[in-house]
Amino acid sequence: MPILYCHHESGHCYKVALALTLMGVDFEQRPVDLNRLRELRSEDFRNASLFGEVPVLVFDDGLAVCQSNAILDTLARRYGRFDGRTEAEKVRVREWLSWEGNRLAMSLPHLRFSRSFTAANPAVEAWFAERTQVDLDTLQNHLYCTDFLVSSGPTIADISACGYMFWADQARINLDSWPAVQAWLGRIRALPGWRAPYDLMRARHPILTGTRT
Amino acid sequence: MPILYCHHESGHCYKVALALTLMGVDFEQRPVDLNRLRELRSEDFRNASLFGEVPVLVFDDGLAVCQSNAILDTLARRYGRFDGRTEAEKVRVREWLSWEGNRLAMSLPHLRFSRSFTAANPAVEAWFAERTQVDLDTLQNHLYCTDFLVSSGPTIADISACGYMFWADQARINLDSWPAVQAWLGRIRALPGWRAPYDLMRARHPILTGTRT
Repeated sequence: MPILYCHHESGHCYKVALALTLMGVDFEQRPVDLNRLRELRSEDFRNASLFGEVPVLVFDDGLAVCQSNAILDTLARRYGRFDGRTEAEKVRVREWLSWEGNRLAMSLPHLRFSRSFTAANPAVEAWFAERTQVDLDTLQNHLYCTDFLVSSGPTIADISACGYMFWADQARINLDSWPAVQAWLGRIRALPGWRAPYDLMRARHPILTGTRT
Repeated sequence: MPILYCHHESGHCYKVALALTLMGVDFEQRPVDLNRLRELRSEDFRNASLFGEVPVLVFDDGLAVCQSNAILDTLARRYGRFDGRTEAEKVRVREWLSWEGNRLAMSLPHLRFSRSFTAANPAVEAWFAERTQVDLDTLQNHLYCTDFLVSSGPTIADISACGYMFWADQARINLDSWPAVQAWLGRIRALPGWRAPYDLMRARHPILTGTRT
């Protein structure tokens, strides 16, 4: 059974846990204490993780993969699920993964962390907030025309982009301003087997205020 | 011949131009004026680009790909060059692409833009600077042990991570503090066909101060 090193407050981990769940792949969760310095985290975790960060997924054959979008890419290629069907669709999926990694996976998680865990400098928090708005606008403009990010159906692009979105309230973002995004999240929630972040990931090590992950 | 929509001040574009050059693929450059609002950029460019941003590469068969790391991924898969050889190596390459997109492709370009084009709020610039230092440390720590990011040889992971690095001076970063990074850049420079950013990309539309790309 694959092993997922994870933390229940990480949307990057949630993406992977959700992908495994939606693909019907059973996995073992090993919660990692993010309050510990990276070099003091367990040896099996450090051996498996290139950057000392969660998530890491270790497959049955020993292949260890880190970086949430690289894990999603590997899962889609290995299991042939939630991926584009044609080369052009697969490419579109990877464009969205790249966009997510560079934009949404930076803006929204930092805004949430600043507003719910440890406050950033106010000017920096304002920068996160502005960027989050632009990113939600990008999603919204696209989702007016299509049910899922790649029109053929739900893919790892959606699973990636929704990673932190179910915690929008923790970033003090009211998604009522982005109704197409809300409708899309509703379609994700309706996928067979969908579960919410705190329902899917086991809570063990709370994030201490003042912690920097 | 593939068409690359690009801008000579964009390290994201440089990555793609460099990959094509190192792979020996001739391509046509079409410089895009980033001073124009996205919705006013040329129709052929807007049709090809999901996000209205450079770079976009349009292959001979019409496949249009945006997001620099998604383009590198597609090039490596299509041409079978500068990729890992085994599945594990290919996964490692994608882990580095993900790291680059989420970390280095955010910190260093923003720091350079703030210090050479349009100044950000000082607290925000300081945040970029701190993050750039952490990212250079990550690269340095890894490059002490290996000649290229994936040990089997140069890959698109190196091409991606070096995208803005030859402009470190424009971000007022002195790479003397990161000798293993400098040595790695020397090895990239020594690859057959390597060319510097301003030597490779045609300058047409200068960035106006006050512009936000």
